[in-house]
Amino acid sequence: MSTGLLTIDLAAIVANWQALAKIASVETAAVVKANAYGLDAGRVAQHLANAGARQFFVAATEEGVALRQALGDGPVISVFSGHMEGDTQSIADASLTPMLNSAQQMQRHFAALPNHSFGIQLDTGMNRLGMEPAEWAGLRSEIIEKGPTLLMSHLACADDPDHPMNAQQNAAFEDMTQGVSLPRSLAATGGTLLGAAYHYDMVRPGIGLYGGEPFGAAHPVVTLDIPVIQIRDVAVGETVGYGNVWTATRPSKIATIAAGYADGLIRAMGPNAKLHSDGMEVPVVGRVSMDLITVDVTALPDAPQSLQLLGAQQSVDEVASFAGTIGYEILTSLGTRYQKHWTE
Amino acid sequence: MSTGLLTIDLAAIVANWQALAKIASVETAAVVKANAYGLDAGRVAQHLANAGARQFFVAATEEGVALRQALGDGPVISVFSGHMEGDTQSIADASLTPMLNSAQQMQRHFAALPNHSFGIQLDTGMNRLGMEPAEWAGLRSEIIEKGPTLLMSHLACADDPDHPMNAQQNAAFEDMTQGVSLPRSLAATGGTLLGAAYHYDMVRPGIGLYGGEPFGAAHPVVTLDIPVIQIRDVAVGETVGYGNVWTATRPSKIATIAAGYADGLIRAMGPNAKLHSDGMEVPVVGRVSMDLITVDVTALPDAPQSLQLLGAQQSVDEVASFAGTIGYEILTSLGTRYQKHWTE
Repeated sequence: MSTGLLTIDLAAIVANWQALAKIASVETAAVVKANAYGLDAGRVAQHLANAGARQFFVAATEEGVALRQALGDGPVISVFSGHMEGDTQSIADASLTPMLNSAQQMQRHFAALPNHSFGIQLDTGMNRLGMEPAEWAGLRSEIIEKGPTLLMSHLACADDPDHPMNAQQNAAFEDMTQGVSLPRSLAATGGTLLGAAYHYDMVRPGIGLYGGEPFGAAHPVVTLDIPVIQIRDVAVGETVGYGNVWTATRPSKIATIAAGYADGLIRAMGPNAKLHSDGMEVPVVGRVSMDLITVDVTALPDAPQSLQLLGAQQSVDEVASFAGTIGYEILTSLGTRYQKHWTE
Repeated sequence: MSTGLLTIDLAAIVANWQALAKIASVETAAVVKANAYGLDAGRVAQHLANAGARQFFVAATEEGVALRQALGDGPVISVFSGHMEGDTQSIADASLTPMLNSAQQMQRHFAALPNHSFGIQLDTGMNRLGMEPAEWAGLRSEIIEKGPTLLMSHLACADDPDHPMNAQQNAAFEDMTQGVSLPRSLAATGGTLLGAAYHYDMVRPGIGLYGGEPFGAAHPVVTLDIPVIQIRDVAVGETVGYGNVWTATRPSKIATIAAGYADGLIRAMGPNAKLHSDGMEVPVVGRVSMDLITVDVTALPDAPQSLQLLGAQQSVDEVASFAGTIGYEILTSLGTRYQKHWTE
């Protein structure tokens, strides 16, 4: 075993979904795009479907095709990027529901698959995906007649409950969907936590399922243990790693562990990162390299066999802070070289 | 097609290997760890073997096992992390050559596989992998008697030709290997470019094969084209993306493209990144999100179908500079959602 061990707690994901469903008290979908934030969309969705989830969201048609194979018939699989050129056959074959984002996508969908399910994504101010208010106003009657499964939008600032953008987007969504008796959805994890005014008929949590902020009450989902290759004594004045960026100021024991930025351990976290061994914190020294990280284990009483980067003592958000990023990127970056183990 | 298209030029990799082999004029191995820096170790190594490469290096035993399946018998596959606990069976079955890094690894190897090939990695000052000078001095006779395939070390500062560490490590390597008539290797790409004093009997280029610095003369290897999902008009004062971090100061056309940090497009590059369309440069606006990036395409004469992040107009090192990192991390982060196409 010379690669890290990534353990993914499927029961924790199910518990997080149930907790968010309880908060929302409306239909609770599951966002499993980006391979369920790197944790295996097929396995995650199967477990959530067994727990009662009936609606799943992916980013791209290709992801929807793979998810349909894992889930079989039944659950609704919606695609945020909508109906793109070249996607028609896959959308039809895998019974996917594209969230149409523009008049162009609408025309493509109605021409190619006139009787196939679809939803509508509306832009309420994020200016990233969805129909603009004016575009929607012109097409609204035609679209509603075709019976979309869902009218949805996405919040730009939901992680910050006090941001005035939340109420602005909510008002815009109300305004654009007023008088329409169709299912509506505005909230992902952040919006779910903003309260009932944001829940409408369906919430669509993603990051909250996987143990990340802003769902502070989430159960941790991932554990990452990285094996030690060797431990060496380094004398005062000796340097460690690329560019000689770290110099020992006391006699030190330096462990070299078998993971690096090719495993998604973002290079930028280098000098700030910490790992754990039996509850004790140990700091990274020098640069994170492609396949290796060097760690100062001088403080440990015994030579460790492995060190833990993610787990009960250190969340994805804490690791994100080492690299100046967000927990979402830590999860989706986790690489392909780990041994992966899913617990239920 | 709703994901990006990643094109990998295998002929360029072969040409880069040949160019480095010409510079070195000694046995030229190929480093294909981290799945050939994300570009498919099996395909890359097969093409290099056809071009004459006989020695390959990986980081972990698991990578060596996969590479042996792709290459078949014949080429030497060496493992930088050496002989780790639990790896014995795989090393034997796949005929891998571990680079032993410590007395502990040596004892493990000699006990478990007394007649199996091995090399020795020496630490010449990087303090990351390899035997320390004192450790090596004590074991040297015993090891040499067993006939290692290679004595090797690795340079910490080879990307900076003027760094005094290069000469220091070279002197240490000379000192530790003096009087030994066994193949020796010190140089990766950077060391290959430092000149004949660093070449010994074998050079081991990695990044140079894949088109990255410090091999400035490298042929570019990867092209990444990302499809446009939709283009919208944004009025002065409107914001784009998460956190409202970008505000339009003129009437703008904003394209939303189908890739994000879940595809390895590092989130930190956000406000600095640029893409290209038919030779024209267009800037990213707002934050890179998980599956989407927003780009200001106001300056383009026509609505683009896709935008190019990597290619003839923008190298992996230029993209790396947007995120404050190195081309190596851009390559190894390239994600699994792209359609991949290998040209020969």
